[in-house]
Amino acid sequence: MRFSSLLNLLSGLDAASPRDLSSDPELVGAQSIEQAVAGQLAFLDGNSNLATALGDTRAAAVLLPLDPQLQQQATDRGIAWAALLDPRLGFAEALEILHPRQLPPPGIHPSAVVDATAEIGPGVSIGPHAVVGAGCRIGEGSILHAAAVLYHDVVLAKGCEVHAHAVLHPGSQFGRGCVVHSGAVIGSEGFGFVPTASGWRKMPQTGRVVLEDGVEVGCGSTIDRPSVGETRIGAGTKIDNLVHVGHGVVTGQGCALAAQVGIAGGARLGNGVILAGQVGVANRAKIGDRAIASSKSGIHGEVAAGEVVSGYPAIPNRLWLRCSAAFNKLPEMARTLRKLQASNDE
Amino acid sequence: MRFSSLLNLLSGLDAASPRDLSSDPELVGAQSIEQAVAGQLAFLDGNSNLATALGDTRAAAVLLPLDPQLQQQATDRGIAWAALLDPRLGFAEALEILHPRQLPPPGIHPSAVVDATAEIGPGVSIGPHAVVGAGCRIGEGSILHAAAVLYHDVVLAKGCEVHAHAVLHPGSQFGRGCVVHSGAVIGSEGFGFVPTASGWRKMPQTGRVVLEDGVEVGCGSTIDRPSVGETRIGAGTKIDNLVHVGHGVVTGQGCALAAQVGIAGGARLGNGVILAGQVGVANRAKIGDRAIASSKSGIHGEVAAGEVVSGYPAIPNRLWLRCSAAFNKLPEMARTLRKLQASNDE
Amino acid sequence: MRFSSLLNLLSGLDAASPRDLSSDPELVGAQSIEQAVAGQLAFLDGNSNLATALGDTRAAAVLLPLDPQLQQQATDRGIAWAALLDPRLGFAEALEILHPRQLPPPGIHPSAVVDATAEIGPGVSIGPHAVVGAGCRIGEGSILHAAAVLYHDVVLAKGCEVHAHAVLHPGSQFGRGCVVHSGAVIGSEGFGFVPTASGWRKMPQTGRVVLEDGVEVGCGSTIDRPSVGETRIGAGTKIDNLVHVGHGVVTGQGCALAAQVGIAGGARLGNGVILAGQVGVANRAKIGDRAIASSKSGIHGEVAAGEVVSGYPAIPNRLWLRCSAAFNKLPEMARTLRKLQASNDE
Repeated sequence: MRFSSLLNLLSGLDAASPRDLSSDPELVGAQSIEQAVAGQLAFLDGNSNLATALGDTRAAAVLLPLDPQLQQQATDRGIAWAALLDPRLGFAEALEILHPRQLPPPGIHPSAVVDATAEIGPGVSIGPHAVVGAGCRIGEGSILHAAAVLYHDVVLAKGCEVHAHAVLHPGSQFGRGCVVHSGAVIGSEGFGFVPTASGWRKMPQTGRVVLEDGVEVGCGSTIDRPSVGETRIGAGTKIDNLVHVGHGVVTGQGCALAAQVGIAGGARLGNGVILAGQVGVANRAKIGDRAIASSKSGIHGEVAAGEVVSGYPAIPNRLWLRCSAAFNKLPEMARTLRKLQASNDE
Repeated sequence: MRFSSLLNLLSGLDAASPRDLSSDPELVGAQSIEQAVAGQLAFLDGNSNLATALGDTRAAAVLLPLDPQLQQQATDRGIAWAALLDPRLGFAEALEILHPRQLPPPGIHPSAVVDATAEIGPGVSIGPHAVVGAGCRIGEGSILHAAAVLYHDVVLAKGCEVHAHAVLHPGSQFGRGCVVHSGAVIGSEGFGFVPTASGWRKMPQTGRVVLEDGVEVGCGSTIDRPSVGETRIGAGTKIDNLVHVGHGVVTGQGCALAAQVGIAGGARLGNGVILAGQVGVANRAKIGDRAIASSKSGIHGEVAAGEVVSGYPAIPNRLWLRCSAAFNKLPEMARTLRKLQASNDE
Repeated sequence: MRFSSLLNLLSGLDAASPRDLSSDPELVGAQSIEQAVAGQLAFLDGNSNLATALGDTRAAAVLLPLDPQLQQQATDRGIAWAALLDPRLGFAEALEILHPRQLPPPGIHPSAVVDATAEIGPGVSIGPHAVVGAGCRIGEGSILHAAAVLYHDVVLAKGCEVHAHAVLHPGSQFGRGCVVHSGAVIGSEGFGFVPTASGWRKMPQTGRVVLEDGVEVGCGSTIDRPSVGETRIGAGTKIDNLVHVGHGVVTGQGCALAAQVGIAGGARLGNGVILAGQVGVANRAKIGDRAIASSKSGIHGEVAAGEVVSGYPAIPNRLWLRCSAAFNKLPEMARTLRKLQASNDE
């Protein structure tokens, strides 16, 4: 596809957007600005070491920010370019066009086991060895990849995708366009036990998990159902791999949970909360809208809206940075303290 | 079911237990005290904000602790109630009665692949696409859900449940009533390699994993077999999701391991040990009976019986709380120290 | 098998290696030196409490280091022995001989679903309910266990082993002798989203994952593919259970990643890097050859070749040990500081 044809398909460009199509190359794929080779598209944004990367790239075409100097540099190097407000977003759209995913065709593979009471919408694809339990409802255009397992009474709205070896437990509900990656387990029994004289006695987990529209759950992640009520993941929330979400957790919309985050039972997250890798959130903790926790922090109690926290127990990030810097000087501080004390005792 | 009929089925109540059945509602399910709606059962215990919750609830009936004041409050609000020593335990029993699990029927699904040499007990249920290897023995009434995979020579005692996509590796042994949740992997090869001039050389892992009676293993958790001997999980131990138990680990009875705990090879846990979320235990560490590690702590060496530890490296919890509080004041301490030093140098 | 016959098969022994075959027992298996019973082989190396273990063992034969005193002790106790430079390596070889793994026979199980366009090499074994997508190529002698799922265009070189319920995503490439354990997911979509006014928008993940020769990936571990380019795991790298490797990560050869390690997108590891359990590595961090991070440490930025780091943020291990020791004395330091200040203020 010609670069000029691609540009016509990008939402962030209009007729007025600056561009240089002198070379208008035939694109043969896309790559990072550093690794692009002849014929490839790349992009530059604020995260790139801009001028250098552009000076070195072998890309045939680039999506640039609205920066005349970079545009001139690209022209000088004979690289075709177009400039837009969000080149990263443009690149995302371009990737989808240049490297379309190969999706399985609609239909039910003969090796799949689909209960007679399940309702399968139009255009649904059910892969080899997939299992669909009694009372399930699979919305239009949804895809169940190989060996996906749905227990009974699972409901998927339109356009969901369930990858190979994901498991959806009884009664779990999914909004439109949810994606469950391989090995993720949704709606499994919460870890609830009552201590008794003869040991741990299971608290039955009779609740359910609800994923609102556009939620994505990474590989191997687990979202447990509660003893009563719901575990609920807000619309548009994205969850990375190997994340644990305990029973009865509720998150707001548009949260992002990085890999290996663990959220204990009953915690509440507001909208737009971001938890970096390996963060832990304790039972019944509350995290306000748009709060951010940096990697490995451990949160108890409450975090106010918009706050950035770090460390364990988590404290405001700015304070933590200073405390951590001081931590590294503790041996020195201890030495100074001993000297002062000695001199004081004299 | 009427509340009065339900009460007859609970083990923690006898004829003498206080109650108020004036309304004796027909129950339509159970919920938390905060979220209950008309017709539902709830419970109150020491973990609830008791009087407030009871004042606000819309539950039709509640299980209460032995507290006359709360009982009066319930009666005043026209809520049916019964009081017992452990309302949480009563609620667990009630949930089982009000929301019975829907279990798969006994029998072997035609799509399952069961080796001719496997011994399948009476009343066993083997789901679609499950695989049972040579020499396996499945005890009476056990359930293998869809796509559970048993390698060869796995032995399950009576009444075990293996969820969809769990994998049981060769020679693993399970006591009565064990539960393995979706995606858990039991008896896989331990991470043992010998460093050689040409790189890591695998140490063959010829041992096996033994789960004693009543052990439960959460979704995605992994328990490795050792090079020789056993990895053994003591009776009644409950393991949450995404926990790693290394080769040759031995735990006592009735331990509880929360989500994302990691226990390295050869560690020893006593009876009743509780490890909170994301705790790490180092190779060959030893943890005494009923010791508790709070979330994210990292344990090396030994922890005495009954001790509560926190932090990394883990120290007694009380000390850690004070150290953590002081950590947050480190910048201030450093400033004070500088001033004192300056004043001392004058 | 006689001990003498076994010795003939070990690579670390030659005719000149010291030994005592007086008893030349018939071996019935192998065990640790502490747990060995009659007829079993054990070994001793620098990690064992040598003399004590040898004094107490009931092993029939032992592999010893080149230490005349230990050899004499074994002879005195009537234990057959042979001495070699690396007894642990000898034991690894012996285990393989005494406890050979029971491997599935070559051939495609009738319940497997193999796309007509897949190329299956000679001697390949494909287990029950395994799925092989279009365009896959499976190298000679490779083993796909039960319910392994390969999406389209996956390439395995010779002698790979893919365990039950592992999932290999489109385009993933595996060198010779790679092992993927149960529940691991290779080549899944990286966690890449572009923030937009209407929420997170997926960055298409069009790259692929490459595992070079001899890489081993533990149970439940996940290795994501990047938006463009490759995620690459260097030859001979061994990865334990529940490890997350983000999109675009590149590791050198012979690295070892312990359980629950998380490596964020774009990080670079040199050769021979060792990350202990629950270590986290931040986006785009760089770790030099043979660097070591102790358990639970968190790495940002760069770690120099050969360095040993600990803590979060990670600092040189020696410094961290001293800082951690001082941390435990913080309350005391704070008290001393208050006293000094009070005395200074007088």
